[in-house]
Amino acid sequence: SCLAVQAGLAARYGSSYPDVPLLIKLNSKTHLVKTDQKDPLSRRMLNVDQVMDLKNNGLNILAVGYTVYLGSEFEDTMMAEASEIIFNAHRRGLLTVLWIYPRGKAVADEKDAHLIAGACGMACTLGSDFVKVNYPKKEGAKSEKIFTEAIQAAGRTGVICAGGSSTDPKDFLERLSKQITVAGAVGNATGRNIHQKPLTEAINFCKAIASVTFIDTDVSTAVKIYNGERDFNI
Amino acid sequence: SCLAVQAGLAARYGSSYPDVPLLIKLNSKTHLVKTDQKDPLSRRMLNVDQVMDLKNNGLNILAVGYTVYLGSEFEDTMMAEASEIIFNAHRRGLLTVLWIYPRGKAVADEKDAHLIAGACGMACTLGSDFVKVNYPKKEGAKSEKIFTEAIQAAGRTGVICAGGSSTDPKDFLERLSKQITVAGAVGNATGRNIHQKPLTEAINFCKAIASVTFIDTDVSTAVKIYNGERDFNI
Amino acid sequence: SCLAVQAGLAARYGSSYPDVPLLIKLNSKTHLVKTDQKDPLSRRMLNVDQVMDLKNNGLNILAVGYTVYLGSEFEDTMMAEASEIIFNAHRRGLLTVLWIYPRGKAVADEKDAHLIAGACGMACTLGSDFVKVNYPKKEGAKSEKIFTEAIQAAGRTGVICAGGSSTDPKDFLERLSKQITVAGAVGNATGRNIHQKPLTEAINFCKAIASVTFIDTDVSTAVKIYNGERDFNI
Amino acid sequence: SCLAVQAGLAARYGSSYPDVPLLIKLNSKTHLVKTDQKDPLSRRMLNVDQVMDLKNNGLNILAVGYTVYLGSEFEDTMMAEASEIIFNAHRRGLLTVLWIYPRGKAVADEKDAHLIAGACGMACTLGSDFVKVNYPKKEGAKSEKIFTEAIQAAGRTGVICAGGSSTDPKDFLERLSKQITVAGAVGNATGRNIHQKPLTEAINFCKAIASVTFIDTDVSTAVKIYNGERDFNI
Amino acid sequence: SCLAVQAGLAARYGSSYPDVPLLIKLNSKTHLVKTDQKDPLSRRMLNVDQVMDLKNNGLNILAVGYTVYLGSEFEDTMMAEASEIIFNAHRRGLLTVLWIYPRGKAVADEKDAHLIAGACGMACTLGSDFVKVNYPKKEGAKSEKIFTEAIQAAGRTGVICAGGSSTDPKDFLERLSKQITVAGAVGNATGRNIHQKPLTEAINFCKAIASVTFIDTDVSTAVKIYNGERDFNI
Repeated sequence: SCLAVQAGLAARYGSSYPDVPLLIKLNSKTHLVKTDQKDPLSRRMLNVDQVMDLKNNGLNILAVGYTVYLGSEFEDTMMAEASEIIFNAHRRGLLTVLWIYPRGKAVADEKDAHLIAGACGMACTLGSDFVKVNYPKKEGAKSEKIFTEAIQAAGRTGVICAGGSSTDPKDFLERLSKQITVAGAVGNATGRNIHQKPLTEAINFCKAIASVTFIDTDVSTAVKIYNGERDFNI
Repeated sequence: SCLAVQAGLAARYGSSYPDVPLLIKLNSKTHLVKTDQKDPLSRRMLNVDQVMDLKNNGLNILAVGYTVYLGSEFEDTMMAEASEIIFNAHRRGLLTVLWIYPRGKAVADEKDAHLIAGACGMACTLGSDFVKVNYPKKEGAKSEKIFTEAIQAAGRTGVICAGGSSTDPKDFLERLSKQITVAGAVGNATGRNIHQKPLTEAINFCKAIASVTFIDTDVSTAVKIYNGERDFNI
Repeated sequence: SCLAVQAGLAARYGSSYPDVPLLIKLNSKTHLVKTDQKDPLSRRMLNVDQVMDLKNNGLNILAVGYTVYLGSEFEDTMMAEASEIIFNAHRRGLLTVLWIYPRGKAVADEKDAHLIAGACGMACTLGSDFVKVNYPKKEGAKSEKIFTEAIQAAGRTGVICAGGSSTDPKDFLERLSKQITVAGAVGNATGRNIHQKPLTEAINFCKAIASVTFIDTDVSTAVKIYNGERDFNI
Repeated sequence: SCLAVQAGLAARYGSSYPDVPLLIKLNSKTHLVKTDQKDPLSRRMLNVDQVMDLKNNGLNILAVGYTVYLGSEFEDTMMAEASEIIFNAHRRGLLTVLWIYPRGKAVADEKDAHLIAGACGMACTLGSDFVKVNYPKKEGAKSEKIFTEAIQAAGRTGVICAGGSSTDPKDFLERLSKQITVAGAVGNATGRNIHQKPLTEAINFCKAIASVTFIDTDVSTAVKIYNGERDFNI
Repeated sequence: SCLAVQAGLAARYGSSYPDVPLLIKLNSKTHLVKTDQKDPLSRRMLNVDQVMDLKNNGLNILAVGYTVYLGSEFEDTMMAEASEIIFNAHRRGLLTVLWIYPRGKAVADEKDAHLIAGACGMACTLGSDFVKVNYPKKEGAKSEKIFTEAIQAAGRTGVICAGGSSTDPKDFLERLSKQITVAGAVGNATGRNIHQKPLTEAINFCKAIASVTFIDTDVSTAVKIYNGERDFNI
């Protein structure tokens, strides 16, 4: 597991937390410009050699990440940058994670299970170690069921689910458990569900997530870990 | 013959199948953005030196491939990238295959025999070893007849036909036989007609295709090979 | 403290004022093209190596600066250039200041406190030493209060306030004092409020600003410094 | 004299015809996208160093060529590429020919004598050895007369006329004679008028063109050469 | 003083006129595409190293020039290229002249005195040795008066006036005298007013211009020089 951050954050804070393994996210955008104004485009801000330079200066960097907006009018630019990053990262011993989200005027439903499977397939053809996608949604279907298409399309690429918007911890852990045990996801990328909790609660929540992810802990035990009634360490 | 794959697939799976000769496809796109939204543009994702790096690390790579959308508003970008790739590939001893498809707002009929001949002529002027095109269609004309214009336009560049959508195996083999014996194509690039069959049937179908392509086997014999009633090996 | 100038000005005037520490502003634009015609885009004009060349030829250069228009359709270009500049500047021992202004068709209110906090957060994720932003404005709210969100979002990046349009010196010093003592800004970038005063008055005003910034001088004392009734030197 | 071909054709056929001196045409486009859809843009596909590489491998290359669409919205790209090519070609001892055609939404009349003179002037300012232009046309004016403006504008750059659409051989030779003896063109670039004739007739036609171009043969003699009644060799 | 020419002209004619000092103009455009179709963009065609190459081969090159269209939607590209050229030219001992013209859909009045002053200020911030601008015009104002704003804005950058359209020689010399003695311009860039005169008259006109520019000759004496009644040599 590692913490996904922009290079600037890594450079300014990384030496204060040398035990935290880092993933450097190489592109990013604001959400001000909406799709109906211009299709999404997020460009590479640093290259892999620059990341290696940060690593060689002592930062605990394990991986690089990059977002591709599948179906954007600019997907050609992002697919080319992603491909270059993966090639260079693997030559230098870094793992790669692609965030792939279907988005743009051509995308009617960003949570469509087939599109998300396509995103996983793209990550596989680009050779990424991991891909982070949204959890599919379909009226009348169980997400963990329709998600298996994505897991299969990803082949040897591990699938990580986006944590999504803040939800009740128990619901979150139940969903996570199904993603991993039923659908076959290899992990979860959680942001707001951790950041927006008080510190102790956040730590316990991380432990609960880790227990589900690494040793398939059942949900009720995971909830106890979250409540501080049990502990979990790797 | 070789298997056309993206570089990422080659990197992740190639070492598991060292006997399969590979063609690395250097560009790709999704089909989400339609021509009426934006003319097609597919960019080079890796360069030939990076492909050589994969080859030097042990992958069984024979060729590189690249798609040009003829008649797209962005054909200038793709023609320039194709030209650079062919130049570099030939210097390093790799074969080249161009996929050339007329597509874009300016293209009224993607299967027009003259446009497909133009695609073959372009591949020839760009110096590619092979070109993959769609099989032309014209109301009231036999495709294998109007296809000869394309074969002539290709000059010393070998013409390969796209397999097209899934069809009945016998129809497929008949069409293939005419492409090769009447029109003069040098081969066929088959995808869905193989991928979407069970494994044994797919292997037999590959053998049938190979027998037609390499030794001009007649259609009824080829159908027997497909049915497993006869065998064919190179 | 240092004087922010374009590279050309530094090259032509810098050797005449060797005691003035310089920040080289690496991009710039005119205000002729308005946002409703085209979203703002300001490109890097020199790179950090060229700045180092000027420095090695004797110019007193401490820092480089770059403007990002957050929410512009071209923010991807400016974020990528800013990131590259910060990486290279820090490797060569230069400080960095980002000017980040929300601007473009997607930006309804350029002085919105949350957007300005977002600008500060972006500067932090890009790893800049300092960020210069506009002072937020909200009907019925005290700017120094809503500005604290921006200071927090900036993390370890120091926040500098834009001086804004010319105002009464006492009002200016009061506002500055609140920016620094209440909100937590680390400084102020002042242009017109100095340039458009007579020389002696401008010098006294600089001293007054410095006293507030560096030793938290109270406003009435600062006004006296501005009036030449007291002196201040670092 | 030399044969203008794309690099790919040269690479595949050049070694079969070692006596034919070649001009490598460095850009090209299809005519599918019309000017009302998008102004013409044709990009450089290989650079001069790559051409030298082909030459050093044994191809009989004398010159490089490039097309500029004067008045296109993209003329800036083509003028910059043409300039770079001419600079590099001359350093490496290759001759240069620019094809310059006024074309685009801003061009009302592509055969306007002043625009064609402007094309010749542009070739001169870019430093090309030769420029190929269309023969001007004006209601009520003799083309060979209004063409002298272009010859003058070209200065030390030799002007070559486009052969144009297929015409009667006698008319062609008369027009050619006037282009060379009246207007001052240095030669002619002929395509379809040769390619679309049977081989013997085409050879005789080439000889007739050469006799007019190199020794100012009168038209009636040139027609005899074309008819095989007389011979001409350099 | 020097003659401003494109690199191609310099390469083809420069060695025939070794005594004429040359300024190589590094960008250029036609006037076919009007501002209402597309804002002006003129790109760098050669770089400073290539100019040095021409100089090292014997051409008498003193300076390089580049045009920026201030207020164009593409000013960012031209400002970046101008900046790079000035930096490189100064490192290699060449002088620089920027042609800066406000032009584009956002520019209501290209001769506005404040915009022309802005052009001069831009040249100064970019560090150019000289800037060539149009002479401002305002209903009811004397151009030489409103032009002083531009001279001041230029700082240490010398201001050169565009010669403008062909006018009566006496009017031209009067205007020039005021530009230099009243407003403070350092020179004048004259084209059509010289090119479109017979040779002897043109030479005398050049001498008259030189006498006004270099030794502040009064207008009536300058007119005599133009008429051949007096001589002037540097």
